[in-house]
Amino acid sequence: MSIVVVGSVAYDGVETPYGKVDRMLGGAATYIGLSASFFHPVRIVAVVGEDFAQEDVDLLIKHNIDTTGMQRVPGKTFFWQGVYSHDMNDRETLRTDLNVFADFNPQLPDSYRDAEYLLLGNIQPALQKSVRAQMTGPRFIGGDTMNYWINDYREQLLATIEEWDFLLINDSEARLLSGESNLKLAAKRILAMGPNTLIIKRGEYGAMLFRDDTFFVVPGYLLDKVFDPTGAGDCFAGGFVGALADCGFDLQDEKIDRRELRRAVIYGSVMGSFCCEQFGVDRFRTLTRAEIDARYQEFKDFTSF
Amino acid sequence: MSIVVVGSVAYDGVETPYGKVDRMLGGAATYIGLSASFFHPVRIVAVVGEDFAQEDVDLLIKHNIDTTGMQRVPGKTFFWQGVYSHDMNDRETLRTDLNVFADFNPQLPDSYRDAEYLLLGNIQPALQKSVRAQMTGPRFIGGDTMNYWINDYREQLLATIEEWDFLLINDSEARLLSGESNLKLAAKRILAMGPNTLIIKRGEYGAMLFRDDTFFVVPGYLLDKVFDPTGAGDCFAGGFVGALADCGFDLQDEKIDRRELRRAVIYGSVMGSFCCEQFGVDRFRTLTRAEIDARYQEFKDFTSF
Repeated sequence: MSIVVVGSVAYDGVETPYGKVDRMLGGAATYIGLSASFFHPVRIVAVVGEDFAQEDVDLLIKHNIDTTGMQRVPGKTFFWQGVYSHDMNDRETLRTDLNVFADFNPQLPDSYRDAEYLLLGNIQPALQKSVRAQMTGPRFIGGDTMNYWINDYREQLLATIEEWDFLLINDSEARLLSGESNLKLAAKRILAMGPNTLIIKRGEYGAMLFRDDTFFVVPGYLLDKVFDPTGAGDCFAGGFVGALADCGFDLQDEKIDRRELRRAVIYGSVMGSFCCEQFGVDRFRTLTRAEIDARYQEFKDFTSF
Repeated sequence: MSIVVVGSVAYDGVETPYGKVDRMLGGAATYIGLSASFFHPVRIVAVVGEDFAQEDVDLLIKHNIDTTGMQRVPGKTFFWQGVYSHDMNDRETLRTDLNVFADFNPQLPDSYRDAEYLLLGNIQPALQKSVRAQMTGPRFIGGDTMNYWINDYREQLLATIEEWDFLLINDSEARLLSGESNLKLAAKRILAMGPNTLIIKRGEYGAMLFRDDTFFVVPGYLLDKVFDPTGAGDCFAGGFVGALADCGFDLQDEKIDRRELRRAVIYGSVMGSFCCEQFGVDRFRTLTRAEIDARYQEFKDFTSF
């Protein structure tokens, strides 16, 4: 079994109140893949340019990420640059050079097609749909999107998420997609669009999971220092799907256990919190499964009553 | 045993997306008192004008609230008018007529002085301090404050909360008081100011409790409709102290059990959520302890994993 992850692999320039990095490994597929890799084997689909460094390929491979589906093409790798406000709640994009990502048309290697988990990072909905069509056996699929696709590609997006098991977005995206400011009612409308499971990420305030008539809410982890929040949402996604794959919920029965889903939301939150502790993907260079499980236990400790 | 509650009793004019009420019972002491009364006997200290309606006195008495300490003086009752934004996250004050509240100088009836719980609503810190000095036996005391006192009466406020067991403020007030934007670090600084327990209210995002080196975080209850959030923070305070008094934690040992404090934070959240369901104090006219306990159980259901 494995998880296919599709999305951007990029270089980022990031400035936060704690420092500045001109160029470091980033991109949704990178964060998702690294995060999920702590739980389950990952296969990545992405495109990079000629400037993509071997040490960054090596980092992915070191985490048992299959890079067969990562095409290297003429040109430069996607570059994004942004700066965070002092309270970390806002960020301003200074530069977006799509470069080779502008023509990204994800093609799955044959070896990927029978994977059982598919996690689609935030790319054009039609591309997300085409990936899903290339797979023979996905039994649990879903992904992320953003305000741009919700506003300007709404019909395409609806036709895409209709086929998904889960949608993983943030609170403002949930409000935008549903046209409803109350999140409980927003969730109800979104679940009627196709996905049977909705996860709403709330940044520092945690996350919510909606499914049928039940919901689960977890507060965010309290960090002493939010060093760099870039990629935290993607790491949440990777931890969520990784943990589900790891515990091997019963795919044959297509029955997803409430307990396993809640556990996966916590692991998502755990991975998002680790992501913020250092610049870019740096925290994942040293992170261990034991640290992950210890933080899972911390979540139990500070939320139980 | 009883809880002494000190603060405003007022009339409010409120407009929300769901309707408009020109004049209804309000005020911090009213909300705190009604909320706490579902758990434990309450004694109120406040001032009202000649216009204060008998039916409003009757409502308090019906909830076993001792109104001996509610002075009626010449003039009009404190009046506040505000309008909420569509998403309920902002409100604009249209009018504040302090009226008789401008000269509020809380005097405790003799019968109140040996109460064991004291909850001080948001009034001038020096007045809060004077109330504390009038009591002979309070074993658990604390209260609320606001940005105005934090900014302009800082020394007075620090001298006041130094004597408190708990401080109950919202997240922006915690940041302002501590000068620290990270809430975990802010809490550490505030606990060094005197109170051994800090509760930070986060509105729709829930609440946090800090004590020694431990903390507890609970997300907010998801309402289908936030009808009117006026008073929700005060109802949280009332539920928190009420539940502590109700379970009678060991006052003799001055030992406050972690489990009881967490339970009290949940009851505070429960009471805050009920408050938002109807205009003003209306929800409390029909609310039952069985409904309160059912919602407590709901909190368990949607947060446990």
